[in-house]
Amino acid sequence: MDKLDLIKDLSITNNTKMVMLVLDGLGGLGLEAGGKTELETADTPNLDLLAKSAALGMTDPMMTGITPGSGPAHLSLFGYDPIKYAIGRGALGAAGIGFNMQENDLAARINFATIDNSGLITDRRAGRISTDESSKLCELLAKIEIKNIKIFVKPVKEHRAVVIFRGAGLSDRLSDSDPQKTGLQAKKVIALDECAETTAILMNEFIHKAQNILVDKHPANTILLRGFAKKPGLPQMKDVYKLNAAAIAGYPMYKGLARFVGMEILQTGQTIREEFETLKTNFDKFDFFFIHIKATDSSGEDGNFDKKVNVIEEVDKNLALITDLKPDVLVITGDHSTPASLKSHSWHPVPFLLHSKYCRPDDVKHFGETSCLKGALGRFPALDIMPLIMANSLRLTKYGA
Amino acid sequence: MDKLDLIKDLSITNNTKMVMLVLDGLGGLGLEAGGKTELETADTPNLDLLAKSAALGMTDPMMTGITPGSGPAHLSLFGYDPIKYAIGRGALGAAGIGFNMQENDLAARINFATIDNSGLITDRRAGRISTDESSKLCELLAKIEIKNIKIFVKPVKEHRAVVIFRGAGLSDRLSDSDPQKTGLQAKKVIALDECAETTAILMNEFIHKAQNILVDKHPANTILLRGFAKKPGLPQMKDVYKLNAAAIAGYPMYKGLARFVGMEILQTGQTIREEFETLKTNFDKFDFFFIHIKATDSSGEDGNFDKKVNVIEEVDKNLALITDLKPDVLVITGDHSTPASLKSHSWHPVPFLLHSKYCRPDDVKHFGETSCLKGALGRFPALDIMPLIMANSLRLTKYGA
Repeated sequence: MDKLDLIKDLSITNNTKMVMLVLDGLGGLGLEAGGKTELETADTPNLDLLAKSAALGMTDPMMTGITPGSGPAHLSLFGYDPIKYAIGRGALGAAGIGFNMQENDLAARINFATIDNSGLITDRRAGRISTDESSKLCELLAKIEIKNIKIFVKPVKEHRAVVIFRGAGLSDRLSDSDPQKTGLQAKKVIALDECAETTAILMNEFIHKAQNILVDKHPANTILLRGFAKKPGLPQMKDVYKLNAAAIAGYPMYKGLARFVGMEILQTGQTIREEFETLKTNFDKFDFFFIHIKATDSSGEDGNFDKKVNVIEEVDKNLALITDLKPDVLVITGDHSTPASLKSHSWHPVPFLLHSKYCRPDDVKHFGETSCLKGALGRFPALDIMPLIMANSLRLTKYGA
Repeated sequence: MDKLDLIKDLSITNNTKMVMLVLDGLGGLGLEAGGKTELETADTPNLDLLAKSAALGMTDPMMTGITPGSGPAHLSLFGYDPIKYAIGRGALGAAGIGFNMQENDLAARINFATIDNSGLITDRRAGRISTDESSKLCELLAKIEIKNIKIFVKPVKEHRAVVIFRGAGLSDRLSDSDPQKTGLQAKKVIALDECAETTAILMNEFIHKAQNILVDKHPANTILLRGFAKKPGLPQMKDVYKLNAAAIAGYPMYKGLARFVGMEILQTGQTIREEFETLKTNFDKFDFFFIHIKATDSSGEDGNFDKKVNVIEEVDKNLALITDLKPDVLVITGDHSTPASLKSHSWHPVPFLLHSKYCRPDDVKHFGETSCLKGALGRFPALDIMPLIMANSLRLTKYGA
């Protein structure tokens, strides 16, 4: 039995308010072996004060040793096993540019690429053309006409774009056209089951027409498609948790992920303070709030240790905007680690803080990687965060008599 | 999805060097309740120094409360779920005597046993005849001729031996002839599916011919066969982890287990120092090294607490031979616990140390059972050791976008 089914059976509603504050890529590493991490370096009097009456721990975003992308990491936070509920690359790409996929939509990732005169791929990234150039090409491709299909082509970054096909009966059981290697021809899109055969023909028609449009656009003289995906059919939070949930996020990707599980997306600004004020404004209207802070991750990805420290301190300075609302359950954590020293996501466990009337506090007085190891919650899968939040809000009934 | 499949998808190659040092049966118990374990009693300045910049933890070889044999315990260390990838007793027996099984081989465990005049078993162990006697009987049985089958019969210890049949089309879907009780006749070997029917006939022919040879060799006047097994078809480390792996072990069993997962077996001596020098000599030639120290386990099995302490101290004294090579990842642990007070393998978790540039060290300064409980890695399944090693050597790419 999937744990989600169990939660669905046990969940009830009440008047509690829950806040999950996610500092993307929160977990870090010291600049030298054994040195303080970004979070440990940051001056965080308010987080530390909260830690005194909270239960702390360390979460594994997926599995020991596995580094998750943003999609799987957030699915875990929302209580969805990312291995079971994989989101196709096309759908994730659509989410990333803020495209609101509908039930009938089929999305795919596009790479602009270079082919030579004999049709062999010489560069899978078209010399990393600028986003400006790619935007113009997307506009041209969006004019392609295929019978009964509405087509959206949107730039992502440099040579990367997303295409969304809207029409009845489209299937995502399709192979990629991208052979993932240079020196080869692009592959035909092939149906992976019978029901996808018509869609495969349409996809190859689209590629053929794109080819004709791009013929004189060297180095971006062709496209490669991969990761065909329909809107993921994820169980919705209102059904599983019986929650009226809202997301406060500045970046399209996280709004998209929240939308996939049925959260309402709240209008907000780009600063931490603005995000927290959005919570205040909407606090009466929803049960559950997911607040996403991006800058911890992006500064980690940039290898900017000091900036990551500053972002954490800014969260700390504004924390009263959340705590003054006295949510019944407040969780503060990350979706994964992004140590500045690695300039990338990593596999390391993530500091976790849970504050509620019933959290059974431990004697840990600081919010940091090393101190959280000694917390009441120990080391546990991020997949268990939502059940913990639900339990602490007294929204889960007893299992069995 | 099996985690091994996931690792296979995510693994990449680079130039890092990894060392897994396994002190067999490392985990222990105090001589009285609450007393220091063998590892805690040992004077280990070098291991403790390493611990200061390492991440520590405790591993469960299989599952809480389950005591593993050497086979399953090492499969866990190598990242193979020992429940899913069971190695048949015959194949484990062949590995244990250093027999290099080939694809077509079928192995089984032999017990020399005693039957009375009416063919009923009176002793399943033939009075525990000496290994010398058993060796002579094995030579006799090795002369048995069966059409198109080559037969190897090798002594193990006392009444125990191994037989390997080499020939095309042999199946291991066979029942045991050993009824596991005295007062009964030996059973016929029965085919467990249609494809095994010819093999069952051949096995019964072998037993019949053995019977005739042993008729006047009381108390070893018959044989009982069990654990028919072909060479286990384990995924190979070069495919799963994309590693060029080598094993440094003094005992045949561990060489055999390493061979099953595709490691190259390096020639080495019987002392700890010789094993570590073998690492040095071969350090340039492989990515990953498994070094196996047997004497911690055998002294534990003998109930010799002091000897086990001495072995651990000898490892510590020679540790610089490994650390001077500066492997990118160094793991020091056991395959299971073998407390001298129990004179056997046990279910207790095993101390674990991981040293790497990215290990996120904790504040634990000693390598021992009680201190490791407070380590950064917490308590975790031994099955996660290889993913951790791979992550710390930056050989695993991100899961999902």
